[in-house]
Amino acid sequence: MNIPQSVRQVIETGPYAHLTTLNPDGAPQVTIVWVGIEGEEFVMGHLALHQKIKNIRRDPRVALSFLGLETNANPMREYVVVHGHARVTEGGAVPLLLRLAPIYLGQGAEFPPPSKRNIAGYITRIVPTRFSGMGPWAERNTR
Amino acid sequence: MNIPQSVRQVIETGPYAHLTTLNPDGAPQVTIVWVGIEGEEFVMGHLALHQKIKNIRRDPRVALSFLGLETNANPMREYVVVHGHARVTEGGAVPLLLRLAPIYLGQGAEFPPPSKRNIAGYITRIVPTRFSGMGPWAERNTR
Repeated sequence: MNIPQSVRQVIETGPYAHLTTLNPDGAPQVTIVWVGIEGEEFVMGHLALHQKIKNIRRDPRVALSFLGLETNANPMREYVVVHGHARVTEGGAVPLLLRLAPIYLGQGAEFPPPSKRNIAGYITRIVPTRFSGMGPWAERNTR
Repeated sequence: MNIPQSVRQVIETGPYAHLTTLNPDGAPQVTIVWVGIEGEEFVMGHLALHQKIKNIRRDPRVALSFLGLETNANPMREYVVVHGHARVTEGGAVPLLLRLAPIYLGQGAEFPPPSKRNIAGYITRIVPTRFSGMGPWAERNTR
């Protein structure tokens, strides 16, 4: 499904996103990642073959969650949960991370450092199937 | 296992915590919660019988993740991932939420509103089995 404009606006501010994958025994594995959008996919760059990549290759079901920008009248902080299917492609991690670095670390920031820019790395790509959480993107409040 | 002092210090600042449970089909379910500590357990109050409570009663394996306070030299923001087993007890949600409200909403804030203070509710209690993420609490960096 398409990524709502309201979610795109949150991503543009560089929210720390919690990526949940499933370990071999089915237990949740969580790491915090930088996230961008390419077309209708959420994308994350990795310089090494992390456990989350191995998990996605075995079971593509993931959740990606991050805070929204507003506090509603309840008064509760809005947040986005992306439910989706992930796949991992090889290469391209460095250009993606270099694009995201100023958003997450501040204007002028560079990451990865020059010594690591020859790494091909991996990109996780998430195709969203449902949005929940609290905010205009949430189809229904599944808590 | 015991909750490290470094993690207790983060909780005292009122971090928005991502609670991951497992849906009946094994896919991850994520909501953002307020969290406190009682003894050696992480505690969360709920006013209604949410999906996450049903999930925990079926499969107690959960993850709880939140940002830390520091940015390390990489330079990456620290974060905590609590892996653990959860159980749900009935009653006591209102006193817990009233205690956490000033931490999460600001000094003098009250939640829930008076109209909801007769609700018994539920408390999720997480006994940690492992800490990961990025920071002094992380046994090893499992990414």
